[in-house]
Amino acid sequence: MTKLPDITSNFSEWYNELVYASELADHSPVRGSLVIRPYGNAIWELMQKRLDERIKATGHQNALFPLLIPQSFLYKEAEHVQGFAPEVAVVTYAGGKELEEPYIVRPTSETIIHHMFARWIKSWRDLPLKINQWANVVRWEMRPRPFVRTTEFFWQEGHTAHETQEQAHEEVICMLNEYVEFCRDYLAIPSVAARKPAHERFPGAVETYTFESMMQDGKALQMGTSHLLSQTFAHAFDMKFQDTQGNVAYPWLTSWAVTTRLVGALIMVHGDQKGLVIPPMIAPYQVVIIPIIKKNDSESRILAAVERIKESLHHAGIRVLVDADQTKTPGTKFYEWELKGVPLRIEIGERDIEKDSVIIVNRSTGEKKSISCENSAQTIQDELRAMQNHLLRKAEDRLVQEQWQKVEKIMKETVLFEEKGGFFQTGWCTNASCVAMIKEIKGTIRCVLDERTFEQCTICDQKSEADVLIAKAY
Amino acid sequence: MTKLPDITSNFSEWYNELVYASELADHSPVRGSLVIRPYGNAIWELMQKRLDERIKATGHQNALFPLLIPQSFLYKEAEHVQGFAPEVAVVTYAGGKELEEPYIVRPTSETIIHHMFARWIKSWRDLPLKINQWANVVRWEMRPRPFVRTTEFFWQEGHTAHETQEQAHEEVICMLNEYVEFCRDYLAIPSVAARKPAHERFPGAVETYTFESMMQDGKALQMGTSHLLSQTFAHAFDMKFQDTQGNVAYPWLTSWAVTTRLVGALIMVHGDQKGLVIPPMIAPYQVVIIPIIKKNDSESRILAAVERIKESLHHAGIRVLVDADQTKTPGTKFYEWELKGVPLRIEIGERDIEKDSVIIVNRSTGEKKSISCENSAQTIQDELRAMQNHLLRKAEDRLVQEQWQKVEKIMKETVLFEEKGGFFQTGWCTNASCVAMIKEIKGTIRCVLDERTFEQCTICDQKSEADVLIAKAY
Repeated sequence: MTKLPDITSNFSEWYNELVYASELADHSPVRGSLVIRPYGNAIWELMQKRLDERIKATGHQNALFPLLIPQSFLYKEAEHVQGFAPEVAVVTYAGGKELEEPYIVRPTSETIIHHMFARWIKSWRDLPLKINQWANVVRWEMRPRPFVRTTEFFWQEGHTAHETQEQAHEEVICMLNEYVEFCRDYLAIPSVAARKPAHERFPGAVETYTFESMMQDGKALQMGTSHLLSQTFAHAFDMKFQDTQGNVAYPWLTSWAVTTRLVGALIMVHGDQKGLVIPPMIAPYQVVIIPIIKKNDSESRILAAVERIKESLHHAGIRVLVDADQTKTPGTKFYEWELKGVPLRIEIGERDIEKDSVIIVNRSTGEKKSISCENSAQTIQDELRAMQNHLLRKAEDRLVQEQWQKVEKIMKETVLFEEKGGFFQTGWCTNASCVAMIKEIKGTIRCVLDERTFEQCTICDQKSEADVLIAKAY
Repeated sequence: MTKLPDITSNFSEWYNELVYASELADHSPVRGSLVIRPYGNAIWELMQKRLDERIKATGHQNALFPLLIPQSFLYKEAEHVQGFAPEVAVVTYAGGKELEEPYIVRPTSETIIHHMFARWIKSWRDLPLKINQWANVVRWEMRPRPFVRTTEFFWQEGHTAHETQEQAHEEVICMLNEYVEFCRDYLAIPSVAARKPAHERFPGAVETYTFESMMQDGKALQMGTSHLLSQTFAHAFDMKFQDTQGNVAYPWLTSWAVTTRLVGALIMVHGDQKGLVIPPMIAPYQVVIIPIIKKNDSESRILAAVERIKESLHHAGIRVLVDADQTKTPGTKFYEWELKGVPLRIEIGERDIEKDSVIIVNRSTGEKKSISCENSAQTIQDELRAMQNHLLRKAEDRLVQEQWQKVEKIMKETVLFEEKGGFFQTGWCTNASCVAMIKEIKGTIRCVLDERTFEQCTICDQKSEADVLIAKAY
């Protein structure tokens, strides 16, 4: 049993060690890439399942596009290539031969998907075209961090085409909202959804929306993005359609994505000194049952009771695991399952059976209580629901009360900004020189809010165009 | 409405055109790679879901390993590198720099997974270790064919480690059986499961099991394989464990896979002149409802009836689609949905509503009948079940009665072998020279059966070691 580094004073080390100690992932021999172990993958699979339902319910269909993209495709959209060329991996050799034209391993799939869209879109009747892909992508990362920033990562990328800019914009907002709700309802993570400033837009987008959440160490994490793309993509790939008036028009395109980074957010928003705390809605195991067998106890009687309660929970749709490993003490098991963040632990021993009750221990609050076996599935469902709400409320309260300051002049608050972090809401004139100043204190403009409470730019005293959120970020 | 090439005289063209016309897939700008379109992907997703359930039910856990593998890993097992080196794609350049050690894009993941297994396996307590990965892989194909052989394809690859050879062998057979049952019960495809001859083994395997099925053109298709690997892999990756006696031992390894090739099998086993015929258990849409609205009919009344029956089928768990597109005639829709192989078509017009009935048309038999709206969900469930059984029985009968010959001397039957194809069961001495002769008539030994009905080798008259199945193959 290794002890995790202190979460308050050494958050970064705590995070890194926890990722590996909890068996979410392991180091790989491939630079910047993780092996996602079964426990981490089980969380990602649940995320995929829930997100996929939402993506389909909003009228999108999944498809699969090639991993390798002709290098020339990347160069068709000027901003896009500037953004991605420095970080692509290139296949120059295949089938025993040097290739005439190299392929890039997709860093994102706009180019190849737009090439196909151009084949499929002929008339306004073919629009909207709403496609999603679950895929792996590769971006050569200079500063990898498990889940948060890895050379290879897993994601869904939505790509859609619409008749009008308004419809495309609606799509961008619709999927942004789906993401925000998914993270709130399943991951218990509150977030701020808003526009990115122009200099933080996706390469080739005319508008990028982001949703940002706040980690316990006061650093922001971009959870996902949704883009309204420039029509230069449609032009570059010769994607035209005949509109309802019979004129030739270029469709309006969107793209949007979330990634395995969400697993990182889950760890950094809810984890504690003992390890992971996984919200019940997204926990691979919602309940772990540990039989407590002491000397002279009837082992078979206890294991039979364990089996009964397991069956009743399973029957009620609860994801439940029994840890009956006899080579480990109950104490070791408590430690391991707390480290792995299983929401509820059930302990069953002789005395519990005699009272027709079991002990339940709440991973989040640490609260321990005895509950009657009668209606235990219902009691546990209620407990899980309460825990899910509690985790969300806790994260929301922290965000609003501790991690969000309104400040007139950020440079007067640099100590607070550096030490405590969080979102600093303030005014901004939109000038690049002020962004550079903010960078000096390691801050970035995470997003531009719709409101304007500050009249002046936080840096230069010029007129503020809108409130922005500034934070240090991952 | 394009007509498909003749399925009898021009099977290969029929197949290729059908793949694209039915919108299962599209050509891509990447050599040998497909774009799998939503309809094709929906079939693959259903396959994945059902297979994943079986893989988990047999005690395996999913994980994700890196796409890129250090090139040196491939060279650690001598046979393995010989088999795969000629067809790998190599990343030599990444992040704006020439790489010191190139990465290969995985053609299969034994090497990287065994590297990780060596980290995870220390004691007999860590065994068996049973991992599965859903992934894309790349093998540079010289003769690509949609779904059947593509440069990039999608698959699951199982990788397991066991204490003893017997346990590993049991695993190999267990997963082979899972595959065979899945293909029988969901794809309605019968297959022969048996050993590969030594010269057809997976590079690095001591035993490869295959399950082979027979396409309508008399050519065999290898549906999937399950391998008992040589312990040289464990040695190469220094994968050791302490056994129950405290001795150091090397685990026994297996790997097994099926791929998007199964979509190709589905087309080639069940398709007909009108297009795809998709078995109900794996059909993205099991039923399509087409409203038949004639002049002077009450459109709203018909659409209301359509909606009612759709809801009742949906409620009964049937995957149902309404095609109410008013820009297309019913005839066009019949053609399109027959091309796409939807098992049952429902037609609803004024006269049907008056009789409180609907017309159903069976895609496989072409049979058309009127059924009462009362209990229609149950009637349709029964019809779908009957169609599933019918398709399997039809394929089984064809295999046994038409596509399987027992012959003493294959060289006496070369005309039949060339023209009609099918499995030719005969005797084989195990000598390579006889394999070479069989190759002359474009035959390969698909598998070695457990029985021995032939005393002599079909080529050289020496003693036969076992019956084999010879066929032309994809």
